[in-house]
Amino acid sequence: MKIARFSNGGDPRFGIVDGDEIVVLTGDPMFSGFDTTEERIPLAEVRLLAPVIPRSKVVCIGLNYAEHKADMGDVGPSTPLMFLKPNTAVVGPGDAIQLPPNVGKIVHEGELVIVIGKIAKQVKAENAADYIFGYTVGNDVSARDLMVSDGQWARAKGYDTFAPIGPVIETELDPGNVEITTFVDGEQRRHGNTSQMLHSVAEIVAFASDVWTLLPGDIIMTGTPGGLGGFVAGQTVDITIEGVGTLSNPARARS
Amino acid sequence: MKIARFSNGGDPRFGIVDGDEIVVLTGDPMFSGFDTTEERIPLAEVRLLAPVIPRSKVVCIGLNYAEHKADMGDVGPSTPLMFLKPNTAVVGPGDAIQLPPNVGKIVHEGELVIVIGKIAKQVKAENAADYIFGYTVGNDVSARDLMVSDGQWARAKGYDTFAPIGPVIETELDPGNVEITTFVDGEQRRHGNTSQMLHSVAEIVAFASDVWTLLPGDIIMTGTPGGLGGFVAGQTVDITIEGVGTLSNPARARS
Repeated sequence: MKIARFSNGGDPRFGIVDGDEIVVLTGDPMFSGFDTTEERIPLAEVRLLAPVIPRSKVVCIGLNYAEHKADMGDVGPSTPLMFLKPNTAVVGPGDAIQLPPNVGKIVHEGELVIVIGKIAKQVKAENAADYIFGYTVGNDVSARDLMVSDGQWARAKGYDTFAPIGPVIETELDPGNVEITTFVDGEQRRHGNTSQMLHSVAEIVAFASDVWTLLPGDIIMTGTPGGLGGFVAGQTVDITIEGVGTLSNPARARS
Repeated sequence: MKIARFSNGGDPRFGIVDGDEIVVLTGDPMFSGFDTTEERIPLAEVRLLAPVIPRSKVVCIGLNYAEHKADMGDVGPSTPLMFLKPNTAVVGPGDAIQLPPNVGKIVHEGELVIVIGKIAKQVKAENAADYIFGYTVGNDVSARDLMVSDGQWARAKGYDTFAPIGPVIETELDPGNVEITTFVDGEQRRHGNTSQMLHSVAEIVAFASDVWTLLPGDIIMTGTPGGLGGFVAGQTVDITIEGVGTLSNPARARS
């Protein structure tokens, strides 16, 4: 199922995407299940929102594809490299990525995003699937020059709007072999397949949940494949993940 | 005023510390003000809890005292170096710091903690005080060897229980000239004065709020002074900040 969080004027609601319509759910399916109301709304009449707002963590995995790791100089540990974005960086499909002044080069990093559905603490890899609500598409927007000058990546990757996710959460994806492709103004820039991950989804959930308790609604961005990453204000970044959908965000300059 | 979050058996409540009693407040003073109930409870009869649970960010400032920065090899940018801990790392006074196996050396970093009281976005330094609810004491617990091997510090500083804060929030502190002293089993290990900060509280709030929107309840750990930092399971870390109080946490091994 493809779960959307949306507004057609009022407060955010949740629904199941069914063709070109949304079947409205009675509440947030992560907490209240998949009971539907009688209401169906044409997709064209709603605004899709970030499909989840993490209450705790936006975990990111760095350097999780060999080609990208090589592009970055083959640094980093053999275990998953984790860093955090704040939940205030999350925006939804169509929302503008706001590029601050004087931060140098900005890159897109199109990534498969794990959406955690249950409290997860020291979960074994073989049980990881039980804790995953579904998957969405994410853009780990990064100010590349600040990553280098700060050393720590929290600022370079943590600006407001630097974590677009969406358009929906797919609850039935097999994450082991799906294509991820990133386009800037329609031109392909990055491409890979989740089968190339150095650390699998299950390994990542096990590793992360040994460090910090994962809460329902926490998300894990699983790393970007190789390719060229730069984009500028006025361009639009589209990230397509097979079986999930396309996340599209325009970039704007902010003051 | 010293604001405590506490339990004496039921749900967490808030109160003002008045001598050896707590004057119970009608709600969370960050959102509902300082109206008191008729109830007074002896401090000895309550368990103090983490005085705030951030809904969004635990921001930390690295290398903000010259002596500590020199100890760390004088690396880092000239601007404030920011990193993030997850809110799942927060524990309160008296709670055990749980040390995971196989992570190498663990150090305490006693720090003045800013508690944000209002939504803050691109705040000017001269207005920073308007956005600060108060100050508490924090321990930026860090797995020093993992900081080096990962390069990124999120894991090394993000384990559950690695962000003890408390015992109370002081709403009337002048943060520019207070002593910070850290003890392990009663023996002094680190010492400094906030007047030695490389970046002041006001500068930090301005800098951080230009990057990410600060939400009420977000906290900012402002960096540790110099000194020796190691501690092990079985020891107790006490951090005293003049005018705020002493945060005390025992360390335990976890599996």
